[in-house]
Amino acid sequence: MTDSTAADRALDVVCVGNAIVDVLAQTDDAVIEQHGMVKGTMALIDADQAEALYAAMPQGVETSGGSAGNTAAGLASLGAECAFIGKVRDDQLGDIFAHDIRAVGAEFATPAATDGPPTARCLILITPDAQRTMNTFLGASVNLDPDDIDADMIARAQVTYLEGYLWDRDEAKAAFLKAASLAAVNNRLVSLSLSDPFCVDRHRDSFRSFIRDHVDVLFANEDEIMSLYEVTDFDAALQHVRDDCRIAALTRSEKGVVVVSGDEVHVVDAAPVAQVVDTTGAGDQFAAGFLYGLTRGRDLATCARIGAITAAEVIDHVGPRPQVNLGELVAAHLAG
Amino acid sequence: MTDSTAADRALDVVCVGNAIVDVLAQTDDAVIEQHGMVKGTMALIDADQAEALYAAMPQGVETSGGSAGNTAAGLASLGAECAFIGKVRDDQLGDIFAHDIRAVGAEFATPAATDGPPTARCLILITPDAQRTMNTFLGASVNLDPDDIDADMIARAQVTYLEGYLWDRDEAKAAFLKAASLAAVNNRLVSLSLSDPFCVDRHRDSFRSFIRDHVDVLFANEDEIMSLYEVTDFDAALQHVRDDCRIAALTRSEKGVVVVSGDEVHVVDAAPVAQVVDTTGAGDQFAAGFLYGLTRGRDLATCARIGAITAAEVIDHVGPRPQVNLGELVAAHLAG
Repeated sequence: MTDSTAADRALDVVCVGNAIVDVLAQTDDAVIEQHGMVKGTMALIDADQAEALYAAMPQGVETSGGSAGNTAAGLASLGAECAFIGKVRDDQLGDIFAHDIRAVGAEFATPAATDGPPTARCLILITPDAQRTMNTFLGASVNLDPDDIDADMIARAQVTYLEGYLWDRDEAKAAFLKAASLAAVNNRLVSLSLSDPFCVDRHRDSFRSFIRDHVDVLFANEDEIMSLYEVTDFDAALQHVRDDCRIAALTRSEKGVVVVSGDEVHVVDAAPVAQVVDTTGAGDQFAAGFLYGLTRGRDLATCARIGAITAAEVIDHVGPRPQVNLGELVAAHLAG
Repeated sequence: MTDSTAADRALDVVCVGNAIVDVLAQTDDAVIEQHGMVKGTMALIDADQAEALYAAMPQGVETSGGSAGNTAAGLASLGAECAFIGKVRDDQLGDIFAHDIRAVGAEFATPAATDGPPTARCLILITPDAQRTMNTFLGASVNLDPDDIDADMIARAQVTYLEGYLWDRDEAKAAFLKAASLAAVNNRLVSLSLSDPFCVDRHRDSFRSFIRDHVDVLFANEDEIMSLYEVTDFDAALQHVRDDCRIAALTRSEKGVVVVSGDEVHVVDAAPVAQVVDTTGAGDQFAAGFLYGLTRGRDLATCARIGAITAAEVIDHVGPRPQVNLGELVAAHLAG
């Protein structure tokens, strides 16, 4: 395990996001409809809703999650030097989250909250079509505040990676903006994932100006990028985004990835998946693979290929984090 | 979900055991040696040891476990009416355990402890050979006491099933003995699983007299039954046990199962497993299948066949509880 407090360690990526423990259960489509969920998306729920939904859920499995946390785990598995910033409570689920993020080799030093709501959890229903429908009780994670952003850690990292979900609460948004400014001041790259089409809906205007002003590397899927620019056509969205940020990696599920950077456009196929079991974490692992390539100086098409490989691995099993050594997996694929 | 408080519901089996949340992580053999563990067995650890071992463990997955709890989950998945008695603390892991045992359809009414140690956890290391090495911090589970044994619940059940691990603490042992006496008074069957060769070592003499005096259906694997009678030969152990209890189901991993009942002896093959991933829970699920058959009036050879099918299902994936509907699985196998 890596020493998680080495203050002079150079970092490839620092990931900032909601610190969440996932509760995953396999279920049928009827449950999704019954509870008025929109399949494949994330809804925010409060403590009472979380309790009611959990009571109605089948037996589950608990595993550390959170979009940026999953990306940090993927980066570490690839062999990148990385860190995570996010807020847990000093409770059992918080201990599990902290253990797991450190166990993968990521630095994690954000102090746990000693009062307030419990560690965040995300109730995830996996339907037979491998789609995941997420219901997040944000709990302690929303109490991430600007003081939790370690200026030194941001300065040590080539890339500061932010998940759009942080935008959902004002304090976390302030922390998010502080991290982005610190990265810019240090001539580091700022990367953003749009997270979810509903998240884009909630924050469209401020996301757009933030992307224009601060984002070097943007991750979005088809729905998110079209929602961001309020267009119904993927190519129209692509034209917009090429003006707004230096690099945009746009994922299109089984149709692969389009990377656009100024005049450069790359279309990369999805990697084959033997068995699509659970798509939880696919976007997070794509970002991990892409950023790994980027920090290793690979060309954009190769970055996208690495992302496609790491995304395919996580789709093949239940849970949002890799179950194999991604560094070895990617090396084998790129050599083959 | 089944109403878990129906006081007049007839039960097939009530399972009494340690209420434990498992923390499962895949690791290599070096870690097992480094920490002086004996592969394939269960060791009891205290809170400090649990903390130290957890810190050294890779990222894990949390899932409800406990030997008798797993058996209850298997029985419920088979369509049996069952209940579980065991002690959690009123903490997050306790909530997870209680949710999961109820979500599978088992009655569970044991009140959570409001003080004392936290909910029990078992740190399980899965090596590439699919063996699991377990380290249990018993926590709140040892505070199961005779008052937690619901006399009415025992009277409603055809079988009272007890895990040997309960014998490790005096209060829980007293609860165990109370449950057995109540079952006998009500002319119900008492079933015991020997749990682990080390557990047998710790309690050999009192296990032997308990089996002679109280046990109708005994579950043991090869190591456990030979340890119980201090013999080095399986057939010698078999001769001993046929005098001591009405039915003994002796599992021999890939060599299948031997069921002995007086003059009756059945040798049943193990069910084929596509991929041996994690043997955690195999014995628990064998017991579930066997007891399901028994409460449905099936002959002993068929009981063993059902047990072999349910054990094979759980070996095929990470985690100690079934991931498919066992009732449908068994029906398909027996029809085929």
